[in-house]
Amino acid sequence: MITVESLAIKFDKGHLRILDQQLLPHQEKWIEITSVQHMIDSIRALKVRGAPLIGVAAAFALAQSALKKTPREDLLKKAQALYDARPTAVNLMISMNRMKKVLQENFNIEKVVQTAEDIFREDFDLCERIANNGAKFINDGDNILTHCNTGSLATAGVGTALGIIRRAHEQGKKIHVYVDETRPLLQGGRLTTWELQKLKIPFTLITDNMAGHVMSLGKVQKIFVGSDRIATNGDFANKIGTYSVAVLAHHHKIPFYVAAPYTTVDTECTSGHDIPIEKRKSEEVLGVTGSFGDSPSTIEWAPEGSPVYNPAFDVTPANLVSGWILDNGVFTKKEIDSGILRKRN
Amino acid sequence: MITVESLAIKFDKGHLRILDQQLLPHQEKWIEITSVQHMIDSIRALKVRGAPLIGVAAAFALAQSALKKTPREDLLKKAQALYDARPTAVNLMISMNRMKKVLQENFNIEKVVQTAEDIFREDFDLCERIANNGAKFINDGDNILTHCNTGSLATAGVGTALGIIRRAHEQGKKIHVYVDETRPLLQGGRLTTWELQKLKIPFTLITDNMAGHVMSLGKVQKIFVGSDRIATNGDFANKIGTYSVAVLAHHHKIPFYVAAPYTTVDTECTSGHDIPIEKRKSEEVLGVTGSFGDSPSTIEWAPEGSPVYNPAFDVTPANLVSGWILDNGVFTKKEIDSGILRKRN
Repeated sequence: MITVESLAIKFDKGHLRILDQQLLPHQEKWIEITSVQHMIDSIRALKVRGAPLIGVAAAFALAQSALKKTPREDLLKKAQALYDARPTAVNLMISMNRMKKVLQENFNIEKVVQTAEDIFREDFDLCERIANNGAKFINDGDNILTHCNTGSLATAGVGTALGIIRRAHEQGKKIHVYVDETRPLLQGGRLTTWELQKLKIPFTLITDNMAGHVMSLGKVQKIFVGSDRIATNGDFANKIGTYSVAVLAHHHKIPFYVAAPYTTVDTECTSGHDIPIEKRKSEEVLGVTGSFGDSPSTIEWAPEGSPVYNPAFDVTPANLVSGWILDNGVFTKKEIDSGILRKRN
Repeated sequence: MITVESLAIKFDKGHLRILDQQLLPHQEKWIEITSVQHMIDSIRALKVRGAPLIGVAAAFALAQSALKKTPREDLLKKAQALYDARPTAVNLMISMNRMKKVLQENFNIEKVVQTAEDIFREDFDLCERIANNGAKFINDGDNILTHCNTGSLATAGVGTALGIIRRAHEQGKKIHVYVDETRPLLQGGRLTTWELQKLKIPFTLITDNMAGHVMSLGKVQKIFVGSDRIATNGDFANKIGTYSVAVLAHHHKIPFYVAAPYTTVDTECTSGHDIPIEKRKSEEVLGVTGSFGDSPSTIEWAPEGSPVYNPAFDVTPANLVSGWILDNGVFTKKEIDSGILRKRN
């Protein structure tokens, strides 16, 4: 058993802790996870979030349960419950399928824990490779726009889209980042700003509807976003608003890259039409939820009972993407069309 | 002297009251305006807003001051101060130029008051004509997307873009409206929802970054927005985010109309490049400001000191516009190109 520690998750001798991302950036508070249900609730409440990190966190929740000598049949049920916690994140499905396989085929506690640790370590390594693959697209002096949060708060490592930006900064390139606040849950305004501030990477926070205006002024040279699920034809799901950014990038002829580990590719999905889109509760759009420092947990500005549409994700078609930056390479539309994503490495 | 009363402003025997739009939709509170400076502060704080209504409100503030027997020279200075209160709204400039002319040419108190009343009445009539001109573009069963607030809270009458939607509804057409919340100040989420609820017009509130996704699903048939200033080549300034909506509409081949009174056309501006864009304070993007019901006035979610870009408006180029719906007619790109906006009626 190893000691696992990243920016947002810690696992040490059965103690599982997650950084409560709902309280960021004003409070840095760690939550001691006590059960699988506690983890499911934390995933649903977005206390732990980011498609890769959810997969890692769910695996550790199962490992913790195994260490408490939970019977195999119960562990299998818990794996399924974790699998169902968020419908769009394919990493969670893959992580749970892998854990289920271990439970079914050669069950022992040590093996379950080791598999969770492997999932963590592999995600860390995947991030490194994505960052290295993507950083070469960033030039000295570039202004980069990003959406949502795809950094160390969303993965076990440096992140995906934000990991690329971080790597370019570490390489000494002078860059500046436009951060979409990413309504309704404000992962950009709250989390990406917090990470960039920690990393001392210059940034400017904008509301989502300023992205087009900023592009029209010639102020954006590259766009990098993450993904929660990639279909084999290159269509991909990501945080709501990503599609609008892609259309705007296309209109302004700005290169638009999606960055993700290969575990994000769902070989069962042949196009974006097959990706289920999670709908979330109206309150998120009627105002802002979550605790923000010492403020009350909910502020509602819309008239009571206003009807709301609140898809958590949207799908960006492959024809709007300049390149797919995965850990195992950077793929062009031509390569995707030739079916490269259909073969899982 | 007439009694003036609309949804958001009242002027009766020198008593000037405005509906405090910052407190909507949770509180309907009228503010008794006591001086020109009080009106300037109210305009800057967006307690009174909407380009046409600002022009009307500023005129009444001057009329009130005239009724208090303020000397002509002081009234001229106050007119200039009002003129400078918000740099993008051309209606305010036109309104104040007209008031200054009266002050300079044939000054008497009654004439000043009557001019303010004329400005109100004319804006009311302009709205009626815009609504009638635009409603014909809406079909039974249409889903319409709009941005910001352009209704009775923004004008002396039924509004511009929202007035058109209202007129179509009054004509018995079954319509449904997607309302962009319009960050950072949430005029859509707070005001347009409130007006539509009052008018019993079905609507769905979305965050700004959902607009593209909703269009991609084929759920939007028409888009109507207002304008704060129109250049003679047809480029126009409107609330930040309008440009992104226009690009998205263009990509999805959805008709995109701008609706405004002819007073919005600035014959001095030959293109959008000449329109000054007001920058507002960072706090608006770092969180939400203004009083929302009983909640504290400010919630900040971004890390302290995060750099912010906060343009209040953006410019949409004429080539993204399907039609200019003014009170004196509906114009095509071809008519605009022939210079029709260069001749003020």
